[in-house]
Amino acid sequence: MSQVQRKRSFWTWGHSSDEPTEAERRKVAESIARRTGVAVEPPPVPDLGDIEIRKPRLKVPEALRGWVSTESEDRLLHTYGGHSLELLAALRGRFDNPPDAVAHPRTEEELERTLEWAAGAGHVVIPYGGGTSVVWGLNVPEDTETAVTVDLDCLNAVLEIDRTSRAARVQAGILGPDLENALRPEGLTLRHFPQSFPWSTVGGWVATRSGGHYATNHTHIDDFVESIRMLTPRGWWESRRLPGSGAGPSPDRLVIGSEGTLGIISECWLRLQKRPTFRASAGILFPDWQTGAEAVRQIVQAKLWPANLRLLDPEEAGRAAGVEGSLALLVTGFESADVPQGSNIRAAVAIARECGGSIEDEAIRIDDGTGKATGRGGAVGAWRNAFIGVNAGATNGLGLLSDTFETAITWDRFAEFDGYVRGRMTDVLNRVLGKGASLSCRFTHVYPDGPAPYYSFAGTARLGGEFEQWQEIKAVANEAVVAAGGTVTHHHAVGRMHRPGYDIQRPDLFAEAYRGAKRAVDPRGVMNPGVLIDP
Amino acid sequence: MSQVQRKRSFWTWGHSSDEPTEAERRKVAESIARRTGVAVEPPPVPDLGDIEIRKPRLKVPEALRGWVSTESEDRLLHTYGGHSLELLAALRGRFDNPPDAVAHPRTEEELERTLEWAAGAGHVVIPYGGGTSVVWGLNVPEDTETAVTVDLDCLNAVLEIDRTSRAARVQAGILGPDLENALRPEGLTLRHFPQSFPWSTVGGWVATRSGGHYATNHTHIDDFVESIRMLTPRGWWESRRLPGSGAGPSPDRLVIGSEGTLGIISECWLRLQKRPTFRASAGILFPDWQTGAEAVRQIVQAKLWPANLRLLDPEEAGRAAGVEGSLALLVTGFESADVPQGSNIRAAVAIARECGGSIEDEAIRIDDGTGKATGRGGAVGAWRNAFIGVNAGATNGLGLLSDTFETAITWDRFAEFDGYVRGRMTDVLNRVLGKGASLSCRFTHVYPDGPAPYYSFAGTARLGGEFEQWQEIKAVANEAVVAAGGTVTHHHAVGRMHRPGYDIQRPDLFAEAYRGAKRAVDPRGVMNPGVLIDP
Repeated sequence: MSQVQRKRSFWTWGHSSDEPTEAERRKVAESIARRTGVAVEPPPVPDLGDIEIRKPRLKVPEALRGWVSTESEDRLLHTYGGHSLELLAALRGRFDNPPDAVAHPRTEEELERTLEWAAGAGHVVIPYGGGTSVVWGLNVPEDTETAVTVDLDCLNAVLEIDRTSRAARVQAGILGPDLENALRPEGLTLRHFPQSFPWSTVGGWVATRSGGHYATNHTHIDDFVESIRMLTPRGWWESRRLPGSGAGPSPDRLVIGSEGTLGIISECWLRLQKRPTFRASAGILFPDWQTGAEAVRQIVQAKLWPANLRLLDPEEAGRAAGVEGSLALLVTGFESADVPQGSNIRAAVAIARECGGSIEDEAIRIDDGTGKATGRGGAVGAWRNAFIGVNAGATNGLGLLSDTFETAITWDRFAEFDGYVRGRMTDVLNRVLGKGASLSCRFTHVYPDGPAPYYSFAGTARLGGEFEQWQEIKAVANEAVVAAGGTVTHHHAVGRMHRPGYDIQRPDLFAEAYRGAKRAVDPRGVMNPGVLIDP
Repeated sequence: MSQVQRKRSFWTWGHSSDEPTEAERRKVAESIARRTGVAVEPPPVPDLGDIEIRKPRLKVPEALRGWVSTESEDRLLHTYGGHSLELLAALRGRFDNPPDAVAHPRTEEELERTLEWAAGAGHVVIPYGGGTSVVWGLNVPEDTETAVTVDLDCLNAVLEIDRTSRAARVQAGILGPDLENALRPEGLTLRHFPQSFPWSTVGGWVATRSGGHYATNHTHIDDFVESIRMLTPRGWWESRRLPGSGAGPSPDRLVIGSEGTLGIISECWLRLQKRPTFRASAGILFPDWQTGAEAVRQIVQAKLWPANLRLLDPEEAGRAAGVEGSLALLVTGFESADVPQGSNIRAAVAIARECGGSIEDEAIRIDDGTGKATGRGGAVGAWRNAFIGVNAGATNGLGLLSDTFETAITWDRFAEFDGYVRGRMTDVLNRVLGKGASLSCRFTHVYPDGPAPYYSFAGTARLGGEFEQWQEIKAVANEAVVAAGGTVTHHHAVGRMHRPGYDIQRPDLFAEAYRGAKRAVDPRGVMNPGVLIDP
């Protein structure tokens, strides 16, 4: 079984096979010690079997034991999502609040029996996909008496491919690579690549309104969902496969982003695309961040629909792509399965140059699917490699505190917004982590009416004090983006972590309407309580 | 005031100025008589002042009389939407169920006081935009004790234009042309043109999930809404202006399509575009309907995003564009404010030819904004003129029964779906209207995963029996599209007319969730009852 081979690591992002070796960890520790002047040791990785956790507070009925377990290891592995401070707690062997049982239903019938039991008994139910939530979306709430995590890992098949409409019916528990592997022989792709792609699932993408990797036009999972099948405590909710509809508010749009609070997504029909063969890309330098932002605005408003349109501020351009000085880097790219993209990239480059961007003609890379691209990649290639290399946990426990937050704002307010958020963040970072802390930003997604800025920060924490320090910083980030008019999350979801900002930004009456909707399908309020709304 | 100058006609689509003259009506009557062999007279148009209607069943508080009236003419003019059988009833002077009062609030404060009064007193509240509903979306339900229609016609300003983000804050009551006139000097456009455009409002478009005129990519009003401000019986619901967000289910998407059942939309921020200057179009002939459909599928799946991609079946191609024989006509067009569209149209034509379509190179029309287009329009021009000429009521009361219904279906099922729907419709049309009845279809919108077919039928009815005959036909249409897997409406909305199909197609639990949501904002159930759901 592929699940077993690719067992999730409990202390790093990704699978066990992604974990760094002891030698690698030591090397990173030495490099940190050189930089900070303070010696640091990689903490030992505990043996899961040695970790003592709370006894299960419920009894699994005999009939369900084929797929519902109360074994410690399974419960440990489902205690945390993928946020770096959760991984740090796990590395330190702290699993204070594990679920009481973990279900791995292998059929919809087993899923039904699981939910019937759990909802009937009043156990909190936590839907679980890939476990990559970075917003406390899958943790057992503190005040919960009993909780059952429902892992969809065995409901992970591609059930049907409709080549004519270019759509597939897939089970929610399928991981990104498994889905793409199943579609590749058909020449098709979902073309939805969130950064968590290797470890996250279709159900998770739908539940959290995942953003995807592409910068413009159809990139959000919202656009790719043709229909949804979801099990609620009151039974099945299933929408029709429809390419478009104006029949009342979209039922799917109420499920997309519901983060497990309405039910457990079991299947979706997803819209697919032909795999792109035509590609073009360019890396364009700008004298500064705001000049680059103006070029991005003009390119996205020209509706050329680039697959990639990412602006890196000088900090990120330097770190990720080796750009020197105070230049901002715009990485743009086009893709198509059917149409050469040379004219699109040239139109984008022309706009960028008008705005003060520089790139040599020979640095524009155009690939018409012949296998022989023209032009050299330049800064783009360097950046792409930096992006793909995800921090696989080598720094975990070494006193580095780093995190990201992402938002979106309309263009008219962007400059002021960015200044305000950077100001507030610089203050709190200096106060909490000292002057050495870094703050940087890039655009991950861009819309004709505004960008989605993605901020990263990092600094040296007090060993053992990381969580409190992070909390202080995160509170400011939550507060600042919302106070300045943005969204508390653009694609990381709300979970429990973003509630303070979310509770301010969403219309109060929407929250009440949503509570009313939830009550109709989950009358006892067992589905993922505390996420999005209080019961 | 523009509202007064453009007073709505009570018996034809559009304004009084759109009404046909007596001579025009007589000419149409003679032409019908020649065709059917039965003499027919245009019925006299009643004088509104002569029509006796039910006395108002409520008393308007003194303080509200500045904008809430119980005058007969105002109530008459708000009794019906724009469906042809409503216009027929109106022409016959039948206004059995008028609202008891009509409000024309001039400020949000007056809107608040109106809703406070009406909801407090338990009067049914019917939000009213342009009055063009063809689905019984704004009528007083039969079993209602008292009803107040709230016409947004005085809340019709463009309040703010954000040139940087390309967005505008507009009041919901603004009519299409007024909005475009306000945006034109800025070089901007909403570029949303439902067929009702001259007479319908932004609020109506949002409430009914309007489809817009463009065939692919961003055309639905859903895509253009940046935020919504809506007054519910429990107060204001206002979302943030955000270019994108992953923070929980979209609050706006619950309002879009709510058809007045949650509250009264007062304002929206809408995403705008630069006005297109580059255009290209072509009319391509296909040996038959299904061959043309296959070409449409391939073109839309190539993601060239044409503004226009409409396939007309032989019946429509003959009637609307003078195409002879049994050929289907594909009308395609591209538009852009920034990029020449020659290569896109040539790519689309190449696909069409591969699929068996024919067009001479010289018939491809390309306009690069220089004012000198190359190529002749051919069939496209003929079709465009036919489309713009809306039936302005000249046939009203002359015994013609014609109507349309629109749906959407995935490509894999389209051929079978179309065969089934045509079969069921031909049966019922023959039975009810006799052999001379016509049935035809075109695609109004196309998606990579399926088309939105738009069926039209027409025939000769029994004078005085039109409603019953229509009912029998419409029941089959409702039933057939849903039974065959489609949606009961693609862009005409649900209203009360489409409830039988809608109640089958939407997930039952979505209806319950929606009821729960409605209860939270409209506890007494006064907002447009019977539309979408029963209380």
